[in-house]
Amino acid sequence: MKLTNGKKTMLDDLQEGIKRAYPMLKHVESTRGFINRNFKDEIVPLISGGGSGHDPAHWGFVGDGMLAGAISGELFVPPTAKEIVEVTQKLTSKKRVFYIVKNFEKDVDEFCKARLFLENAGWKVGVAIVKDDISVDAASFEKRRRGVAGTVFFHKILGDYARKGASVEELQKVADKLSENVKTIGVAFSGDNFLLKENEIYYGIGIHGEEGYRKERFESSEMLARELISKLKLSFGFKSQDTYAVLVNSLGEVTKMEQIVFNNDVCELLEAEEIGIGFDKVGTFLTSFGIKGISLTLLKIKDENWLKALKTKVDAPEW
Amino acid sequence: MKLTNGKKTMLDDLQEGIKRAYPMLKHVESTRGFINRNFKDEIVPLISGGGSGHDPAHWGFVGDGMLAGAISGELFVPPTAKEIVEVTQKLTSKKRVFYIVKNFEKDVDEFCKARLFLENAGWKVGVAIVKDDISVDAASFEKRRRGVAGTVFFHKILGDYARKGASVEELQKVADKLSENVKTIGVAFSGDNFLLKENEIYYGIGIHGEEGYRKERFESSEMLARELISKLKLSFGFKSQDTYAVLVNSLGEVTKMEQIVFNNDVCELLEAEEIGIGFDKVGTFLTSFGIKGISLTLLKIKDENWLKALKTKVDAPEW
Repeated sequence: MKLTNGKKTMLDDLQEGIKRAYPMLKHVESTRGFINRNFKDEIVPLISGGGSGHDPAHWGFVGDGMLAGAISGELFVPPTAKEIVEVTQKLTSKKRVFYIVKNFEKDVDEFCKARLFLENAGWKVGVAIVKDDISVDAASFEKRRRGVAGTVFFHKILGDYARKGASVEELQKVADKLSENVKTIGVAFSGDNFLLKENEIYYGIGIHGEEGYRKERFESSEMLARELISKLKLSFGFKSQDTYAVLVNSLGEVTKMEQIVFNNDVCELLEAEEIGIGFDKVGTFLTSFGIKGISLTLLKIKDENWLKALKTKVDAPEW
Repeated sequence: MKLTNGKKTMLDDLQEGIKRAYPMLKHVESTRGFINRNFKDEIVPLISGGGSGHDPAHWGFVGDGMLAGAISGELFVPPTAKEIVEVTQKLTSKKRVFYIVKNFEKDVDEFCKARLFLENAGWKVGVAIVKDDISVDAASFEKRRRGVAGTVFFHKILGDYARKGASVEELQKVADKLSENVKTIGVAFSGDNFLLKENEIYYGIGIHGEEGYRKERFESSEMLARELISKLKLSFGFKSQDTYAVLVNSLGEVTKMEQIVFNNDVCELLEAEEIGIGFDKVGTFLTSFGIKGISLTLLKIKDENWLKALKTKVDAPEW
């Protein structure tokens, strides 16, 4: 069961519920967009978005020091370029904006259409396309490079740079460097779109219920952490003394206690590799409607300012 | 499955994970207690606690403007009076403290033993015993008056008064008035300790897996909100123009989207009763290990300062 009134009204009910519980967010009429009610049009506005069904992404990260706005479409369907432009124009009259987009074809299409439209009108537009997922496709064994929970690190770090007055060009440089250094892998414990046996888990699932690459019996939090860390180690090429930021993210329905226990196992394994943990964050940031599961994101710290940016206080309700 | 390494090490793993992810919390050695690392011994320290298994209660509410410390025992077993005294003495040398305790016999026993010990040593000790649960026992039909999610409103409101310099006596007065005006009712969608059919829900379950008072088929978020609001309405005696604060709390595993959709239905029903909603908070605050479910708390606003206290910013990680 899902605690809703059915899929037909779910997103409208959600939108009304957000308006009630988060008065600091201002709804943009005729869209599924929210903007920071207190946004001062003196800095480059950061906007993120995509399909609905990833709550609290991305509206939960709208606030001073993170996103200026967030725009969703229907369930797992991105907003249209027109809606993206509408939300953008509500935020600023200064003709500059920076988009943070997850690497799914339709999402990228709509945000790039919006960019083109605005550039033709004389705007300066930056875009970060996040492709942190390191899982592989079970059939082709190709890397999927989807944008998943690592996106939230972009919100936080770029949000801090933007708050401090970074230009579109400066944000683009930071984003490009972040892109090379953020990697995520996820695992499901159950999902509406696939069948798992009791105590079976599914590695590499997507945030739209996409199938993973391998099913396995769940042994323990520690064994799961070992598997995910070994994949990330391979992908990054861990070197002792390197410093990373850690994001343990519930993809849905995983309790706080479980998140923290898993986080503990992750950190112990990183320490055994002599990896420095510069920042550690645990919670529910970017979920997948219909999935119970967890993801692990690592960001390799190439610039000490990234750590500083991660640690500053923000007003966003779900960071 | 639970994402842990088994019950044997679960609480130790949790404790280590909290230390890693929340450096603002300082662990009190040889207890399951955490204190605010930045606590200034100029105000009355507020301490809450009880059995483990209610994360993020109560450690998640330790921070400037809320609790000075939180102390847990084993799973669903309160800390001992000795541990409570230890955490208290770590926080202050000024011989005054205020405890916030959920109304379970063993919890009340241990905190009252701690109070007696400290009073004999010349301390001034205030205690709020929270009994917000309005569900009834299925056998006796007696009111249970357990302490549940409404406890978090005590943390926030008393925390704000304490921060502003309230004395133990002043805190006690506010706590006593709050007690008469906070009511909660919970419902489970699944639980380790009882069997529910597909789509069946269980009203009035406790936060230690205690059985509820009635099982029913789940219809919709709106119908569930209607049932809970009607129980609260009866208990409070709603009058139009009254103002309430709302707390929608996941007891575990309920997604953010579901929480917000349910919150929307709750608020719509309150508005239909011409009830003013002075404050609305949605999230995961006080859970019950092994339960998927939700609770609804209402606080009747008898003093405008309560609303102000609810709205101030705090540093606690999980508010």
